[in-house]
Amino acid sequence: MAYTLQQLSDLEELRTLKHRYFRGIDTADVALLDSLFADDLTVDYRGGTYRVRLTGRADMVEFLANSFHSDLVAMHHGHMPEITFTGDDTADGIWYLEDIAINLAEKKHTSGSAIYRDRYRRDGGQWKILHTEYDRIIEVIRPLSPDEQISAHHLAKAGRKPHERRDISHLIHWDEAA
Amino acid sequence: MAYTLQQLSDLEELRTLKHRYFRGIDTADVALLDSLFADDLTVDYRGGTYRVRLTGRADMVEFLANSFHSDLVAMHHGHMPEITFTGDDTADGIWYLEDIAINLAEKKHTSGSAIYRDRYRRDGGQWKILHTEYDRIIEVIRPLSPDEQISAHHLAKAGRKPHERRDISHLIHWDEAA
Amino acid sequence: MAYTLQQLSDLEELRTLKHRYFRGIDTADVALLDSLFADDLTVDYRGGTYRVRLTGRADMVEFLANSFHSDLVAMHHGHMPEITFTGDDTADGIWYLEDIAINLAEKKHTSGSAIYRDRYRRDGGQWKILHTEYDRIIEVIRPLSPDEQISAHHLAKAGRKPHERRDISHLIHWDEAA
Repeated sequence: MAYTLQQLSDLEELRTLKHRYFRGIDTADVALLDSLFADDLTVDYRGGTYRVRLTGRADMVEFLANSFHSDLVAMHHGHMPEITFTGDDTADGIWYLEDIAINLAEKKHTSGSAIYRDRYRRDGGQWKILHTEYDRIIEVIRPLSPDEQISAHHLAKAGRKPHERRDISHLIHWDEAA
Repeated sequence: MAYTLQQLSDLEELRTLKHRYFRGIDTADVALLDSLFADDLTVDYRGGTYRVRLTGRADMVEFLANSFHSDLVAMHHGHMPEITFTGDDTADGIWYLEDIAINLAEKKHTSGSAIYRDRYRRDGGQWKILHTEYDRIIEVIRPLSPDEQISAHHLAKAGRKPHERRDISHLIHWDEAA
Repeated sequence: MAYTLQQLSDLEELRTLKHRYFRGIDTADVALLDSLFADDLTVDYRGGTYRVRLTGRADMVEFLANSFHSDLVAMHHGHMPEITFTGDDTADGIWYLEDIAINLAEKKHTSGSAIYRDRYRRDGGQWKILHTEYDRIIEVIRPLSPDEQISAHHLAKAGRKPHERRDISHLIHWDEAA
């Protein structure tokens, strides 16, 4: 029941695919992000105070480009993949997230973890993310302290400025209490 | 001295084994955890303010099920494996932990890192954890702040409630000062 | 375009090389660190409030041995490699760092993330780090709180004590404002 050479190669490509996703969101690399998703992608992210549901690559890229904006100080690291092949060109993946998101406009610091359950499909020779969903494991929200100095903040330059952002309120639902 | 195809396949399985351990503890997935350990497992976890020493799969699963309880907000991420084969069916592994543990009953926030030194053995075709130990690299303990809102907490549902917990004081020694 | 068996084996060795780097710095394992770099290594680390530029294995090891000293509480985790072969014995690598550095002498807590862009070369059968650079993605600096108890601190024992440290001010430039 050992992995074949082809499967070992595919595991490397599948890991790299997801690694690029996390680097892409934190650096607002929209062209990179656009290359990672199947056209018929489906998404369901269940956060502690929000839920994101959308369909299609275009909406996902627009969602990400507007979420990882110039007022967000963001770190998203995906860890510990458990990948299972379901066919020659399809696979499932479990990943475990750690994230920090500091919203400078709202002076709000959110950190936590989540477990992803993804599906991947090889489209035209390239592995793509076909479905992605997560549930929060922990999430902690607190005010940003005046003692905290933000001494590096890549999205300030790379992320969308207020006048460049589009309305994505149809893609994300925030809890009233949040 | 390159890895063989069999070894490359085993490396994937060994990584997944440990990935499941970390997902299992943070989600209180006792059935998953029970599948990961050799019957003759030995454990020695040397924390900053505690030490865990035990023998055998049953005690380990009981220890974990009672440690990752409904009052604990927990994130345990294992990183950067360095795996060395010591035989066809045995291997050693070094892993580097990052963890957060918020005890809501004690209002205590503990975070830190540790380096694991593990041994693995293939039992009946399946890799198992045969020995695991760690030393803390850093550990920081502070009171939980009233400003911190826990907006997601998976173990509240999945972890053992107070009346379900068993006494594991014979498996863990806490420093007096802690 | 799948990876060959040799490349899959090399990917394992390249990952382990970088994993050892992170373990080496946080444990002040100078002998381990010395084994990881090419003699003609070049380094350019661009932090939020500092910049490190140096050439050569000897200067790198001296820089690291003096930076990860007995007053530093340090966690450096490298994640999510994206490795590309550029020849039989050369490769490029992208890594995504998460780090915590608490300077006990200055009562200063720095945490953040960075993206590395490395080059590797096989020298005498062993992969070595030939070039490494990073840019900060986020960096947050705050005073260490009196509420924070450091309950484990490996570098207190393993790191260089004040009288053992050498002047590395020619290798690192600190911003005036920092």
